[in-house]
Amino acid sequence: MSLVEIPPRSGAAFSLKAGQTLKVIDPQGTQVSDLLAFAADDVREVISNGRTFDYEETISLTTGNTLWSNRSNRLLEIVEDSVGRHDFLLTPCSEATFRHFYPEHPVHRGCFGNLAEALAPYGVEADAIPVAFNVFMNVPVDGATGKIEVLPPTSAPGDYIRLRAECDLVIGLTACSAYASNGGSFKPIHYEIE
Amino acid sequence: MSLVEIPPRSGAAFSLKAGQTLKVIDPQGTQVSDLLAFAADDVREVISNGRTFDYEETISLTTGNTLWSNRSNRLLEIVEDSVGRHDFLLTPCSEATFRHFYPEHPVHRGCFGNLAEALAPYGVEADAIPVAFNVFMNVPVDGATGKIEVLPPTSAPGDYIRLRAECDLVIGLTACSAYASNGGSFKPIHYEIE
Repeated sequence: MSLVEIPPRSGAAFSLKAGQTLKVIDPQGTQVSDLLAFAADDVREVISNGRTFDYEETISLTTGNTLWSNRSNRLLEIVEDSVGRHDFLLTPCSEATFRHFYPEHPVHRGCFGNLAEALAPYGVEADAIPVAFNVFMNVPVDGATGKIEVLPPTSAPGDYIRLRAECDLVIGLTACSAYASNGGSFKPIHYEIE
Repeated sequence: MSLVEIPPRSGAAFSLKAGQTLKVIDPQGTQVSDLLAFAADDVREVISNGRTFDYEETISLTTGNTLWSNRSNRLLEIVEDSVGRHDFLLTPCSEATFRHFYPEHPVHRGCFGNLAEALAPYGVEADAIPVAFNVFMNVPVDGATGKIEVLPPTSAPGDYIRLRAECDLVIGLTACSAYASNGGSFKPIHYEIE
């Protein structure tokens, strides 16, 4: 399949079959893409940051790590990663997070609204959208105090991550809409199914 | 209301009205209690570790911090905390986590199974159980590598946390069933609605 562009501040949903690999590319650098994965045969099964942290015994996920579901099944394995810095702590930006963090800016429905619209045809309700795997998002944690910061991604133009589906999935994917997560500018995301 | 005991390796669910305070007590010390909170008028609204980390800007939650919902509403505020060490990263232990982490021990349904049974009468499906706020659970994060460890709680006999309901809630609460989280022994948890 050829390359697909997700325009700035928008989202997409699509099928990914077991064994296929999804390549998520940051074409211009310093951009975030929120990724969700649901089991295609029952979308109540979904990626879970808590199960993933449990089984991987780390909050820093890169090549060799697996994204697990709320039913303790393997959904995606990270098979290649040219960045090594992603986030699985924070929820997709939404109208409420725009009001909270950017009161001086117009409210935007954010990745949450973009994911909700793109995933609705697959039977996913907005309330069932969990913490996304935030590709390229740079959220350092201070181990001593627990404080977190949202810094610009370290991804350079053309950087990418490749994830292999362990079962048939429905994927939600965005080009992030928030200011802090991408260093203040809005850019597209590219993806390719291999 | 008088003190209620949750026996070792079991769970409970109950209503907590707006303005009431829930006191969770570790009577013997070094025990964990998984806490869930759902909006009573629509249980699709539930505590969210990701939204909480977003708004509180920390993964270490104690007095003054709020537990937020997936709809960006305040559900519980921590008003007093004699321990200061809790976890909001990891999912409730379950049959699958027992098989994974304790292959030499009998499988137990864990906090996940206990919460699922206790919450079913309130219309909560097992798949809708998110990461719990794991009261007294001691999970240090290495900020440099992202690695996490599960250590025995630092709670002493009689230590407690008090949380005030910001709206009418359904609470799920356990006395934890896993080996690592409580230093290898199973103990009760006490709670009181004030």
